[in-house]
Amino acid sequence: MPKINGERLLADLRRIADFGRYETGVHRPHLSPQDVESRHWLAGRMKEAGLEPVIDGIGTVIGKSPKTGPRLLMGSHTDTQPRGGWLDGVMGVIYGLEVARALAEDPETAHLAVDVASWADEEGHWGQMTGSRSFVGMFSEADIDKAKHRDEGTPMREALKAAGLDKTPREHLVEGRYRGYLEAHIEQGGLLEAGDKRIGIVTAIVGIMAFRLTFGGIQNHAGTTPMPIRKDAGVAMMRLYNDVMDKFPAVSGPRSVWTVGKMSIEPGAPAIVPGRAEMILQFRDADIKILQAFEAKLMEIVADSQKKGPCTVECVNLSRTQPLLMDERFLEAIEESAVAHAPEKHIRMPSGAGHDA
Amino acid sequence: MPKINGERLLADLRRIADFGRYETGVHRPHLSPQDVESRHWLAGRMKEAGLEPVIDGIGTVIGKSPKTGPRLLMGSHTDTQPRGGWLDGVMGVIYGLEVARALAEDPETAHLAVDVASWADEEGHWGQMTGSRSFVGMFSEADIDKAKHRDEGTPMREALKAAGLDKTPREHLVEGRYRGYLEAHIEQGGLLEAGDKRIGIVTAIVGIMAFRLTFGGIQNHAGTTPMPIRKDAGVAMMRLYNDVMDKFPAVSGPRSVWTVGKMSIEPGAPAIVPGRAEMILQFRDADIKILQAFEAKLMEIVADSQKKGPCTVECVNLSRTQPLLMDERFLEAIEESAVAHAPEKHIRMPSGAGHDA
Repeated sequence: MPKINGERLLADLRRIADFGRYETGVHRPHLSPQDVESRHWLAGRMKEAGLEPVIDGIGTVIGKSPKTGPRLLMGSHTDTQPRGGWLDGVMGVIYGLEVARALAEDPETAHLAVDVASWADEEGHWGQMTGSRSFVGMFSEADIDKAKHRDEGTPMREALKAAGLDKTPREHLVEGRYRGYLEAHIEQGGLLEAGDKRIGIVTAIVGIMAFRLTFGGIQNHAGTTPMPIRKDAGVAMMRLYNDVMDKFPAVSGPRSVWTVGKMSIEPGAPAIVPGRAEMILQFRDADIKILQAFEAKLMEIVADSQKKGPCTVECVNLSRTQPLLMDERFLEAIEESAVAHAPEKHIRMPSGAGHDA
Repeated sequence: MPKINGERLLADLRRIADFGRYETGVHRPHLSPQDVESRHWLAGRMKEAGLEPVIDGIGTVIGKSPKTGPRLLMGSHTDTQPRGGWLDGVMGVIYGLEVARALAEDPETAHLAVDVASWADEEGHWGQMTGSRSFVGMFSEADIDKAKHRDEGTPMREALKAAGLDKTPREHLVEGRYRGYLEAHIEQGGLLEAGDKRIGIVTAIVGIMAFRLTFGGIQNHAGTTPMPIRKDAGVAMMRLYNDVMDKFPAVSGPRSVWTVGKMSIEPGAPAIVPGRAEMILQFRDADIKILQAFEAKLMEIVADSQKKGPCTVECVNLSRTQPLLMDERFLEAIEESAVAHAPEKHIRMPSGAGHDA
């Protein structure tokens, strides 16, 4: 039975947090000098573990096992949000590395092949999950040509050149090479902690739908425009948002979430009746039927607001990602292991956040 | 019976619109070169009308009648908002000038004394109605020392120097000099037009109360934070605003208005549950009792939101101006004149906007 070396695992997690350390966390956006440095360190650790590491032409680090036979891919990402946490992503990569080491150290399992990946740019500074999408052929050379840093505008080509990766080929998934992909991740909600659990077995990655709602009214003087003749776009937005909060629970599943995280009114002065307002409504669920029910309910609410007036409302779909179900045999294997190592401390749950998988 | 010279009046209105002409309107913020130029032109027209004009140490233009006896003050302001309208304010000044001219031309009324004023900075680029407040002793030398342009930050002293006014004394109201102050103004709402009226006889200038409402929640990931444990500051704000819109009508007078013209949520990203939200609620009425009823209702709503949770709400008063009733004898005189010249085309109404008076 192979055994994880907890001290070695923690030492690696702590070591990589030195690259771009910022207060209690880490500042290591993809292709920043600290990020590039950490990738070379990671490749070195992979080599020491008996893997064959490459840093590819977009920055993804893959340590390939020289062994043959059925092969598992493990990993996550080591880039971070600006001033991000020290575990998010990184944990899944170092767990993969430790699993590869632990398997190799036990004669019973030494023949098993595990590749370990740190996907480039999961945090989307240059696009959306650029590294894993590149790996599966969803990010082309032309996409790289166009990509610019979302905040600083630096072309991705320039940043790759600065990282010494401009002449390096990119790695691509070889069909049939892997039996599966396994990613350990910290929980980003508070469900485990609240329920005194230690392990969440992810059943699905949620689908996300987002809509932009734009309200058109008439901008006016807030002192001289009588209430009955106003067309206040801010009021129209607030009334619709209120409707959403009242009516969504009726079609909600137990884990559904819906959020307005962005809204604005124009021109935005205390003494001016807003002529225009805008909000972004997003909802998530692992069940496509619930997403569809939310969408239908939203359309109903929008039509109702449009009919009642006095403001116009326009509803535009911004994104629509499908929920992804995890492989049942994987779920069972993880559950079996959880029963053995953390009895009563595990639950099945969907992942609310997006991931490279 | 004195008679207005309509052509002369319109010619003056059109002439002054040349100073800072911008598209169909005018860009003439107080102490801009165009504003200073227009003041010299205005002083010239006052002189031609037989008045004795001064441009005082803050930029107010006053044309004083050399006549004695009961004295009326007429005027408004010739400064404009950035890219403002061509009539707002200006009309009241040129009407004053034309009344002075018309009275002087008729032997029956030639003895009547009318002073005409264009108050500096009604639009508040350097403070709040700086010119008229200076005139009544509510804007001191120390206030001028501190005043900076609200957008550009230029010290007022510098701008006054550039306008050649730094060594000029300021004019101050002499107690008992005037029988009254009369200001003609375009309507800034749509009440007259909607009712097919031509003259609104202002019964009162409304009082304005404004409150800043700040909502405190917990910022979270919009995918992984379950609905029941969220503290969404945006939702709290929307719920309270909804309450205001539902409950204010019950204590409203026929001309009351209330407005949220400014609101924001933080951090303002589509996938983040807002941890903080803020809105400014303003309400106006000519009746202090109605203002007080609105305030009491708001406090009730705030306490209710605070009690229900889960977010905190803080309510801070930003301003509290008293309504001002107009003089009843003035009202009657204007009404009498309206009956004669525009029968059925006049109504009594409060002014929803603030004015120098």
